Amino acid sequence: MTEEAPALRLHPDRLLPADPGVRTIARRLYDAVRDLPIISPHGHVDAAVLLADEPFRDPASLLVAPDHYVTRLLHASGVPLDALGVGRGPLDEADARAAWRLLCAHWPVFRGTPVRYWLDAELAELFDVDVRPSAATADAIYELIAERLAKDTYRPRALFERFGIEVLATTDDPADDLAAHAALAADPTWQGRVVPTFRPDRYLEPAGSGWAGLVERLGAVAGVGTGTYVGWVAAMERRREYFRAHGATSADHSHADVRTDPLDPADAERIYAAALVGTADAAACTALRRHMLLEMARMSTEDGLVMTLHPGVARGHHPPTGAVFGPDTGHDIPLRVEFTQALQPLLERFGTHPALHLVLFTLDETVFSREIAPLAGFYPAVYAGAPWWFLDAPDAIRRFRAAVTETAGFSRTSGFIDDTRAFCSIPARHDMSRRLDCGFLAGLVAEHRMDEDEALDTAVALVTDQPRRVFKLPTARVGV
Amino acid sequence: MTEEAPALRLHPDRLLPADPGVRTIARRLYDAVRDLPIISPHGHVDAAVLLADEPFRDPASLLVAPDHYVTRLLHASGVPLDALGVGRGPLDEADARAAWRLLCAHWPVFRGTPVRYWLDAELAELFDVDVRPSAATADAIYELIAERLAKDTYRPRALFERFGIEVLATTDDPADDLAAHAALAADPTWQGRVVPTFRPDRYLEPAGSGWAGLVERLGAVAGVGTGTYVGWVAAMERRREYFRAHGATSADHSHADVRTDPLDPADAERIYAAALVGTADAAACTALRRHMLLEMARMSTEDGLVMTLHPGVARGHHPPTGAVFGPDTGHDIPLRVEFTQALQPLLERFGTHPALHLVLFTLDETVFSREIAPLAGFYPAVYAGAPWWFLDAPDAIRRFRAAVTETAGFSRTSGFIDDTRAFCSIPARHDMSRRLDCGFLAGLVAEHRMDEDEALDTAVALVTDQPRRVFKLPTARVGV
Amino acid sequence: MTEEAPALRLHPDRLLPADPGVRTIARRLYDAVRDLPIISPHGHVDAAVLLADEPFRDPASLLVAPDHYVTRLLHASGVPLDALGVGRGPLDEADARAAWRLLCAHWPVFRGTPVRYWLDAELAELFDVDVRPSAATADAIYELIAERLAKDTYRPRALFERFGIEVLATTDDPADDLAAHAALAADPTWQGRVVPTFRPDRYLEPAGSGWAGLVERLGAVAGVGTGTYVGWVAAMERRREYFRAHGATSADHSHADVRTDPLDPADAERIYAAALVGTADAAACTALRRHMLLEMARMSTEDGLVMTLHPGVARGHHPPTGAVFGPDTGHDIPLRVEFTQALQPLLERFGTHPALHLVLFTLDETVFSREIAPLAGFYPAVYAGAPWWFLDAPDAIRRFRAAVTETAGFSRTSGFIDDTRAFCSIPARHDMSRRLDCGFLAGLVAEHRMDEDEALDTAVALVTDQPRRVFKLPTARVGV
Repeated sequence: MTEEAPALRLHPDRLLPADPGVRTIARRLYDAVRDLPIISPHGHVDAAVLLADEPFRDPASLLVAPDHYVTRLLHASGVPLDALGVGRGPLDEADARAAWRLLCAHWPVFRGTPVRYWLDAELAELFDVDVRPSAATADAIYELIAERLAKDTYRPRALFERFGIEVLATTDDPADDLAAHAALAADPTWQGRVVPTFRPDRYLEPAGSGWAGLVERLGAVAGVGTGTYVGWVAAMERRREYFRAHGATSADHSHADVRTDPLDPADAERIYAAALVGTADAAACTALRRHMLLEMARMSTEDGLVMTLHPGVARGHHPPTGAVFGPDTGHDIPLRVEFTQALQPLLERFGTHPALHLVLFTLDETVFSREIAPLAGFYPAVYAGAPWWFLDAPDAIRRFRAAVTETAGFSRTSGFIDDTRAFCSIPARHDMSRRLDCGFLAGLVAEHRMDEDEALDTAVALVTDQPRRVFKLPTARVGV
Repeated sequence: MTEEAPALRLHPDRLLPADPGVRTIARRLYDAVRDLPIISPHGHVDAAVLLADEPFRDPASLLVAPDHYVTRLLHASGVPLDALGVGRGPLDEADARAAWRLLCAHWPVFRGTPVRYWLDAELAELFDVDVRPSAATADAIYELIAERLAKDTYRPRALFERFGIEVLATTDDPADDLAAHAALAADPTWQGRVVPTFRPDRYLEPAGSGWAGLVERLGAVAGVGTGTYVGWVAAMERRREYFRAHGATSADHSHADVRTDPLDPADAERIYAAALVGTADAAACTALRRHMLLEMARMSTEDGLVMTLHPGVARGHHPPTGAVFGPDTGHDIPLRVEFTQALQPLLERFGTHPALHLVLFTLDETVFSREIAPLAGFYPAVYAGAPWWFLDAPDAIRRFRAAVTETAGFSRTSGFIDDTRAFCSIPARHDMSRRLDCGFLAGLVAEHRMDEDEALDTAVALVTDQPRRVFKLPTARVGV
Repeated sequence: MTEEAPALRLHPDRLLPADPGVRTIARRLYDAVRDLPIISPHGHVDAAVLLADEPFRDPASLLVAPDHYVTRLLHASGVPLDALGVGRGPLDEADARAAWRLLCAHWPVFRGTPVRYWLDAELAELFDVDVRPSAATADAIYELIAERLAKDTYRPRALFERFGIEVLATTDDPADDLAAHAALAADPTWQGRVVPTFRPDRYLEPAGSGWAGLVERLGAVAGVGTGTYVGWVAAMERRREYFRAHGATSADHSHADVRTDPLDPADAERIYAAALVGTADAAACTALRRHMLLEMARMSTEDGLVMTLHPGVARGHHPPTGAVFGPDTGHDIPLRVEFTQALQPLLERFGTHPALHLVLFTLDETVFSREIAPLAGFYPAVYAGAPWWFLDAPDAIRRFRAAVTETAGFSRTSGFIDDTRAFCSIPARHDMSRRLDCGFLAGLVAEHRMDEDEALDTAVALVTDQPRRVFKLPTARVGV
């Protein structure tokens, strides 16, 4: 490539603490976990991609267009989303090359971000890129990646194995037939474990557009009428059972808040009926959603699905963008959130139930030390979820550990989740988390707050036993 | 003990910064404060224990059962509270041994927590334990501690002296006759200084269960009728005077919020009368409590009792646990809190009053830089309270100093409080605070933000003049 | 000076990271930016001072009395504001010396604060002071500074040039005739660039005292009737144009919140009319203010003035002090603030408008990672404002970079603003920011998250292109 272009090199000690003494300890810890298999209990990869196992189309379609982590900062820098291929389906080569050039030309805007870190790792480790992206190097890098993508070793299944993924959880609609999961599980040529996750958000938002139609379809799929709240509950229970039979171990929920105030059964029915015909007001719909969330916790105590909460995001903050490009295009913005009072009804009922695992994620860092750690440090059901989305980043991860550990230790945290649509970023994301946890533990050792054998034991647990236990993912493969 | 068990050793540089240059400075600072007497202006040790001076019963009754810092994380890890002896009164030896074994077997869950740090220090320094607790070492450690506890040198008064406690404040109900304090003060064989603290929370919560009976009893003890609000005020003033005569220098308050909105006298009387007969609604009761809190500040300007505020906790978050084991059993969970607007009425009236010392504590770290430091940096009456409870931990203490110092310096902070029921943890807690403050100051010196002579002067002031001045604790002993 | 007094010396590596390896990198970065010109896009220096160019009166009038950063912590320490010369106009020499002595005698209360850091730099670099201030050294230092102030080289214009100020923005009332700015721009003997900033706060607060008179005067100055809301809008637009013609590039807004909910035109007129005659209630006045703020954003899309928001301060928290000493005397206290929902109406309309630059400042650090960085990381119009006021301090600046960078990078931040009334502190403030940014970048390099050539490029951009671009301050001088 161009001789003048700065090199792209991954330093073996990247993200480890700068202090030489602490780094030495961290390196020993990291050496013990670097090559352990990846457990990915929550993410957004499409099972159909693994089923079809077709080659990825081109660098931009793989690494730019579908990843709102990447496109949002380019958009802020003045690049229109359509020039990046967002929401446009398959790109022709000219457009793919143009989108790729935009990424490379704007490389400096990613300085200091985890996106830059992940892309560096993907480019260097996966695609053998050795120059820093820029307008000048964009085309050469494009060709290098495109050449790799044409090889069989870069097909989805081959990468899944190369990445060392022990289990990968997808995110799925309750009405989904999970055909791709079933086909994967039934495929004798494929040993990978891909499990669905029950994600019923839309069915819990009676004020959402099209809700009545959604629950009607849910009833049809479940084979139970959803004309009443009792029917809605039964349909949910059936679909959860269906998901469990296909290997699901978790149900994921993301609403504006996590209040769980119960309604009287009669009130629930009354509001439900009104919502079906569009006469329930906003407050009533919110009240019903909060009651439904409590109901989902009750189901988890019965069927054992881990309950994960990802609250506090204003979805679709910029409607003009949403109208053109759809959801998940970079303009979901976090909100202040509250757990202590919101979850009290749920925890009063189920907080000590042995079957319930409740994993709390947040984009509002203030709750880490104030609410999540104290809750996870008392209730056997509660776990502090790993830093998520905007907080899945080096300094934020350090703040998370510093905020949570002193009250809840390590054993009450979830282990890492990558939460990603970007399949190729999975190894880099898990690697980043491992480096940072080892660095944090090394700091405790260096300050004589923990012995090194304990730090080693914890570092290994955080990527093995801990996520398996919290997300109920035993090592054995679960079939249909 | 077992040869294989990892050793328990306290490193002399524990908790000091890892950077060698900064650590060298920190060590010099710490050497100057390590052995200074302990001033404990706020805590929950029972004066009767010092009066009786009986040997502590057994390791579990001393170190496990009464300490919700210890039991909560065990509970989260699946250990039932009754197996730990919580709320069960004196344990027989089998149960005490079993509870102790549970602590030791779950030792890894405390990694990275201050509880682990305090227990390490107590075990090693006080009881000569030299192996890490575990299921394998539990019995041997139990016996070693039990043997020590049988010695006269391990009785409460002997430990009080060994710990180098200059003054210890207890926390007491306004209706308490303070007999133990009086007897201690009158005891010619005992030179320790133990002072009560006026803690009237329950009398300021008209919506609390049994409030009418409580204020009636308060009136009886005070010798003034509490059938009116004016009577309530007079009774409070008399009991404060009684506490002052027994050496109290502080009044402590912990409510959901710290609003201090005044009521018209007629409204106060009206709500008070309604509350006595149970007809005041929740909003009115809250309004009366806020008015009462303002009234307590007014009393402080007259009688000089330091006013300390510890707001923002949802007490008894898990009612099923509370019903069986009582209060203070690990399920009080912090809430978001607000000071700027809440205290404005109080500070408008008394914020520059020379007799008022108002110390603000929080479990919501967001207010450190946003509200508490700006308030303490303008109002002569306001001090930033040391990190409390969940925040009395190494990283949280560093965050506190980093958040508060730049606006309020060191002189507007309270000095350390241990706030503990765990008598034997007092030295370790104060030592932890000293190490961390010295480390923080060393960091400022290393970055040339302060000269070392200034850091030394500050480090000493923070454990001597500062708490004495803020909590009005002159070195002389105050008798009845 | 006195031989015994500790020396005052500025270490060349002050504020750079303590770790020797990181410091070496930081020093290289800092060397590249240390001497670059100062761009000051937001502050409170009075243009008339530069126009008159008279010698500063005395050390206390220059460095103590007008600076609430300095006087507030002295006030908290028991020093009455009038003894410091606050609000008293010109001081006679005895009073000036007395005020100066109070500052020096209380020097220890500033330990660990940026005020101490700035004053150290001013004393040592500007006035050649080489002893630490104290009661013993106060008079000698006073005389040394007074002697310097009498020299021509210490007049305002000479200092402006010595400081290397490329452009200085003042803060001005919309009704101001900007005569001082015009005279400065027209002065052939003066090459400095001083631009006004449009600050219309009072005109957007219909509930504020004297509002009706204010808007009437605004109308008179603008030559358009303000008896209607439409007239108010027209008057604002004319005054903005007048400011633009005098070189203004920004409009600054500071209200309790930043909600931007639109009103129907008829409602706006109705409330406006009611407010003029004093019959609009508080809620209506607030609604009108929020609508007006949205209107100001619309104006910015048309005239291009950068919109800066500084919300969330309870102004005049201690009315007794305000009554005697006036506003800006140290008792403005921050409040919790919210951006995500508050700005949604504005951003839905104008968030991708190419002419809008919207710079968000906060005193509530919780919004850095939760709201500001996500907004600045998507909307081309939004920039994360530098840490402001209480947060313009070393540790807070580091927290800002750590909280914002991972989501928004460096290119979406504003560059430093000094926001100061203290003219002589300007170089020290900018220097502090440069040192800290270089230290932060060096940390990223040391952890192999960025190459050093990139860090160097970013360090330079942050003090050159970035503030010029964000605040629309091209290097050419803008005349009337």
